[in-house]
Amino acid sequence: MIENSLINTSLRNWKEQNKRLLTILESLTDEQFEREISFGKNTGKYLLGHLAAINHNIIVLFGLGKNPQPDLNTIFLLNPDKAIAHNYTVTNVKEILGASIQSLDEKLKVLTEADWLDRHTNISVEEFQMQPHRNKINVLINRTLHLAYHLGQLSLLK
Amino acid sequence: MIENSLINTSLRNWKEQNKRLLTILESLTDEQFEREISFGKNTGKYLLGHLAAINHNIIVLFGLGKNPQPDLNTIFLLNPDKAIAHNYTVTNVKEILGASIQSLDEKLKVLTEADWLDRHTNISVEEFQMQPHRNKINVLINRTLHLAYHLGQLSLLK
Repeated sequence: MIENSLINTSLRNWKEQNKRLLTILESLTDEQFEREISFGKNTGKYLLGHLAAINHNIIVLFGLGKNPQPDLNTIFLLNPDKAIAHNYTVTNVKEILGASIQSLDEKLKVLTEADWLDRHTNISVEEFQMQPHRNKINVLINRTLHLAYHLGQLSLLK
Repeated sequence: MIENSLINTSLRNWKEQNKRLLTILESLTDEQFEREISFGKNTGKYLLGHLAAINHNIIVLFGLGKNPQPDLNTIFLLNPDKAIAHNYTVTNVKEILGASIQSLDEKLKVLTEADWLDRHTNISVEEFQMQPHRNKINVLINRTLHLAYHLGQLSLLK
């Protein structure tokens, strides 16, 4: 019953939410991404950078390589919108996000079923014995929900 | 490996997202829910009614009973915000949504693993043979993502 397995279902949902994100990336103008999703809240640009930073961190969390742009964490994850001066334009951030989705897609292909059910790099062997659900597939599911949460916000820019 | 099964993981995530929704329900005032999540977009009140309508529809989709309030579909699902005149206050809608979460929680308990992997009432036996992933657990996963999407919007009312 391949279609119903946790790993296949979760990967299918991850890809589906990213497809929706790519549709938003293609259908909105740079000017629309400059706007706040609601008065006084994050800009679309910040959210795109935020999602790119999250994707880069998944690479590290899954032991698949180094973070290619750790400065994104400082600008778009650890600090609120507009707090850190930077030179990224909306065009830059869109490109980085699109590339991060594609790169992650490639990297995830090497993971076996055993890898997916094994711990991520941010939990110790001892902790994992106590909390065996804290594996890579669980991270991907949480990141998928996180993406859906921000898709709900990005959709307001239309 | 109970913790990693598709059904247990999906139910855990469904409950976790609903816990976040209940926290929002408790922490915002009625006046906050009257507001639009962003200028010209849905009100918080509409989204609460929308989520209640979705929960009621799950009961029917899973063959667990009748829809207790089908009028919610007309007001909060099939038509946009402010299109249909109605008498529901924010207090009403909050109560209905809270009760729908609790009621669904109870009803879902009767489903066996075989039930979860079986088709929902909106797909025929023939279609299900062609698309075996269109089962109840897949619906619950999609509704969880749908909930996360709207949580991202409701969080803007804070």
